Amino acid sequence: MEYIVVAGGPISHMPRFTEVKKRYPNANWVGVDRGAYHIVEAGIELLQAFGDFDSLSEDERDVLSLHTVKRDVYPREKDRTDLDIALNWVVQQNPTSVTILGATGGRLDHFMVNIHLLTKHDYVKHQIVIEDVNNRVRVEQPGTYCLPNSGRYRYVSFIPLTDVVSGLTLDGFYYPLNDEQIIRTSSLTISNEWKEDKGFFSFTDGILTVIESRD
Amino acid sequence: MEYIVVAGGPISHMPRFTEVKKRYPNANWVGVDRGAYHIVEAGIELLQAFGDFDSLSEDERDVLSLHTVKRDVYPREKDRTDLDIALNWVVQQNPTSVTILGATGGRLDHFMVNIHLLTKHDYVKHQIVIEDVNNRVRVEQPGTYCLPNSGRYRYVSFIPLTDVVSGLTLDGFYYPLNDEQIIRTSSLTISNEWKEDKGFFSFTDGILTVIESRD
Repeated sequence: MEYIVVAGGPISHMPRFTEVKKRYPNANWVGVDRGAYHIVEAGIELLQAFGDFDSLSEDERDVLSLHTVKRDVYPREKDRTDLDIALNWVVQQNPTSVTILGATGGRLDHFMVNIHLLTKHDYVKHQIVIEDVNNRVRVEQPGTYCLPNSGRYRYVSFIPLTDVVSGLTLDGFYYPLNDEQIIRTSSLTISNEWKEDKGFFSFTDGILTVIESRD
Repeated sequence: MEYIVVAGGPISHMPRFTEVKKRYPNANWVGVDRGAYHIVEAGIELLQAFGDFDSLSEDERDVLSLHTVKRDVYPREKDRTDLDIALNWVVQQNPTSVTILGATGGRLDHFMVNIHLLTKHDYVKHQIVIEDVNNRVRVEQPGTYCLPNSGRYRYVSFIPLTDVVSGLTLDGFYYPLNDEQIIRTSSLTISNEWKEDKGFFSFTDGILTVIESRD
């Protein structure tokens, strides 16, 4: 089953829910804090909600309360973010894919923490992407990957999250690469573009951020 | 001399130039690609411009051409971003501080590359900050630092850019810390808040991102 997780970031940065629903018509929708409110407001069934909903107004909380059937309110933990608690639950449901909305825009510390969250051992092995209006971000550990060209993004950038990413090979992109070592400050692997309808990438060491984007 | 560098990111994420000019009345303004156009459009003297200005319309390029006295157009290099070329020039001018605008919003690969750029040996020793409407980001190497509370941001987050940051001590903040080791996925040092009008932080190993932010 596919999961859409809507976190508490600004809705101005999220793709339209109707468009996401078209792509994932049978997905389960999970809300994190204000994200739960946005799901309900859009008339989409909310499977599960996480957070203490402190950031919601009384009116917004009332709207959310009308949809209590499948809602569990989890208390805030000191050492885990609400998104972390939500993802922990989602990966236990054996998802085929997880798309996180509302994890970008606004506070940059939140964005960086959300990216780092995906590197957690329990999450990095799942197909989890962070998506907003202009970007789709995934975090990968060493291995070989096939990336389909969705036609929605012009650029593909490969950015080391560790000091070094080793043995990086890119195929099917405009600028191919063969067994290269990339350091954090390199600009070599930024703004690549699709050449085929599928791209392949592989690497042997490090953690790699793969960002599809458009202007 | 203080320097303001305006990069090519969306203007919607930049603080108002008039407000920045009030804070840094004597600063030199440097433009990177579309950023140069925004400086000129705001009626601010453009000291130097970098980029090939491919992203500008003919009309916009005409506006920029009216201000050629202090402008040098640098060709695009394959292995350096325009912002990298601009920063390289700025740090050679012995700046007392550098504030980068237009490095956030829009493409997340650009933002990540801009953050990683600040970790370059030549840049990390200078006082360089990336600023947008909600955030001020700096990247630091091991040492002891004093951070004044500008009153403009509620939160201060300390996020490891390396796998580990060691010996992190925080003082003058709501949640102090003494000689802690922080890993990338930890949420312990997120959303700290000021307690005094100055905060102190120090660490012994790794690279640390310090993000002041507000909702």
